[in-house]
Amino acid sequence: MGIAAKFQRGDVLVAACPSREVLQHITSRWGVLVLIALESGTLRFGELRRKVNGVSERMLVQTLQCLEGDGLVHRIALEVVPPHVEYSLTPLGREAAEKVRLLTDWIEGNIPRLLKAKAAP
Amino acid sequence: MGIAAKFQRGDVLVAACPSREVLQHITSRWGVLVLIALESGTLRFGELRRKVNGVSERMLVQTLQCLEGDGLVHRIALEVVPPHVEYSLTPLGREAAEKVRLLTDWIEGNIPRLLKAKAAP
Repeated sequence: MGIAAKFQRGDVLVAACPSREVLQHITSRWGVLVLIALESGTLRFGELRRKVNGVSERMLVQTLQCLEGDGLVHRIALEVVPPHVEYSLTPLGREAAEKVRLLTDWIEGNIPRLLKAKAAP
Repeated sequence: MGIAAKFQRGDVLVAACPSREVLQHITSRWGVLVLIALESGTLRFGELRRKVNGVSERMLVQTLQCLEGDGLVHRIALEVVPPHVEYSLTPLGREAAEKVRLLTDWIEGNIPRLLKAKAAP
């Protein structure tokens, strides 16, 4: 029995469940923002870095490697002069990004309420 | 003009936007799991710690303080013998938890696909 067959359905509240690692990658500080940034289409590394405002080159490389390893991001090295690399969401990454977007949309749309709640004693 | 009026709508891709800090709290390693755990109702500290499998006492205290500061979690110190503390979601926290749940539900329901994608070269 493979590991996939063993976990027909995950439970993030169980420490040993592999769903928790996936959750951590998707909700990592920069993972969330990379998924959101790539939702609108393929981007080069430099374009992605400008879009995910504030990310360092090193953290973006790490985050992309992690999401690529999870099968959520697709990396294409183009054989052109000068060579460059493009990143896009896989079909699975697109589904994940849609769910993340529901959360970020809610946060973005409720900033006045959230700031008011934060300021409350 | 107050800070809330200044940000009628947030943008998580902008480093200075306050929505990014809220996003980081909600999607923090234990923040996500505390919101999910409290979705089904009020819990005592010990109950919550058992439910969020693997969290240390220190990290749970920190996470709860953070979510309480954001107005997402409500802390009630009960005047009983022995004294105890209960935690529940505020209406705002409930809305956040619902969005987070859409993501964790998707992950939990797609574990076979996610593990297969991870195993792929």
